[in-house]
Amino acid sequence: MPVTKGSHTMREVFQQELREVQERLVEIADLVALSIEHATRAFNESNVALAETVIADDHKIDAAAQQLDELAINILARQQPVARDLRIVVSALRISASLERMGDMSEHIAQLARYRFPDKVVPKSLRPTFASMGELDVEIARKLVDLLRTEDVQIAEDIRNEDDKVDALHLSVFDKVLGATWKGEAIDTVDATLASRYHERFADHAVSIAKKVQYLATGDWIPADA
Amino acid sequence: MPVTKGSHTMREVFQQELREVQERLVEIADLVALSIEHATRAFNESNVALAETVIADDHKIDAAAQQLDELAINILARQQPVARDLRIVVSALRISASLERMGDMSEHIAQLARYRFPDKVVPKSLRPTFASMGELDVEIARKLVDLLRTEDVQIAEDIRNEDDKVDALHLSVFDKVLGATWKGEAIDTVDATLASRYHERFADHAVSIAKKVQYLATGDWIPADA
Repeated sequence: MPVTKGSHTMREVFQQELREVQERLVEIADLVALSIEHATRAFNESNVALAETVIADDHKIDAAAQQLDELAINILARQQPVARDLRIVVSALRISASLERMGDMSEHIAQLARYRFPDKVVPKSLRPTFASMGELDVEIARKLVDLLRTEDVQIAEDIRNEDDKVDALHLSVFDKVLGATWKGEAIDTVDATLASRYHERFADHAVSIAKKVQYLATGDWIPADA
Repeated sequence: MPVTKGSHTMREVFQQELREVQERLVEIADLVALSIEHATRAFNESNVALAETVIADDHKIDAAAQQLDELAINILARQQPVARDLRIVVSALRISASLERMGDMSEHIAQLARYRFPDKVVPKSLRPTFASMGELDVEIARKLVDLLRTEDVQIAEDIRNEDDKVDALHLSVFDKVLGATWKGEAIDTVDATLASRYHERFADHAVSIAKKVQYLATGDWIPADA
């Protein structure tokens, strides 16, 4: 691939390639949003067919993330960006890894739905909590699509706020499971523990991506745990 | 920093910098090995002081990973590597992220020990299983140090084999917790579920690093889920 195209400068080609990276990240985030919508619906409604779809489609997210990584590494090799441009491309690699993990969390939620079918995964007393966690995860995933598309840092703040709500619900699951009124069997306890952890990690990865986009917009260094 | 030093060529400087990247990865892996040794001992012996040490020291792993990332991005900017050299530096960024997550898993294991102190985290019937998982995680972490130091792909294979054993023990925890003889309270079930997941994820991250080192040694492309 030539470093110039017709009358375009190398800089213009680079900007075009960055736009392509961004578009692909938005596409992957879209796949993740669809996956978590389906996974949480499958989980809450014991819809095994929908769960199977989520599980079968996870490879699409993995493949899209891998293609994005190949593109980013190609850009590094051909364009040899420095300074902020370099950090954008490196951030894209990290964002792609986080999106791929969000897809995995979504798949794990769907797997719980499938394992327990035709039973529901969690007992009645916890269903409203998981319904809320699921709605928040879906909301966070949709906001992430918008954030990656617009780079509006206000959306990054919104995602952090929603993540705080997910964390509070995650803690409330343990309060309930460890409380005096819990009547669940061991299997209910295991499922609630894992499901809560997957929902919480899904949101954590979104916050990690939001921090990276904020960093790119503001120029602050990415913290190691971001 | 100049691109040449005395009579050294840019290539020699680059090779020297790659060695520094490798040495730093080995150092971080050493910190992770120490962390999981202490965390699993704290977990199995209910040693709250040791658990506190692991929790207090996790920031050292985070800081070392962040410094490595800064070095790697600096190398990308100054040396503008291509082809295999570029992939080594990008892989270093990914390996650093996985090591940082291994430190987090170790910290989570230590946190469980601290929360339950002076009680042990798991009931008697599961202690041999967690003792074995802990030993395997420590063994895997030590092998990872050797793998990063020597790039001997046989060690990567050994790590995969040990991970298979961790996975089998992880499944056996669920068999026990969901079996007819399980007498644990809900809190025991929650702790066993989380502890087993953390031990299993610790080993998974090591396998992911091992795959990257294998890829660098063999030239195969890194799979998206590696």
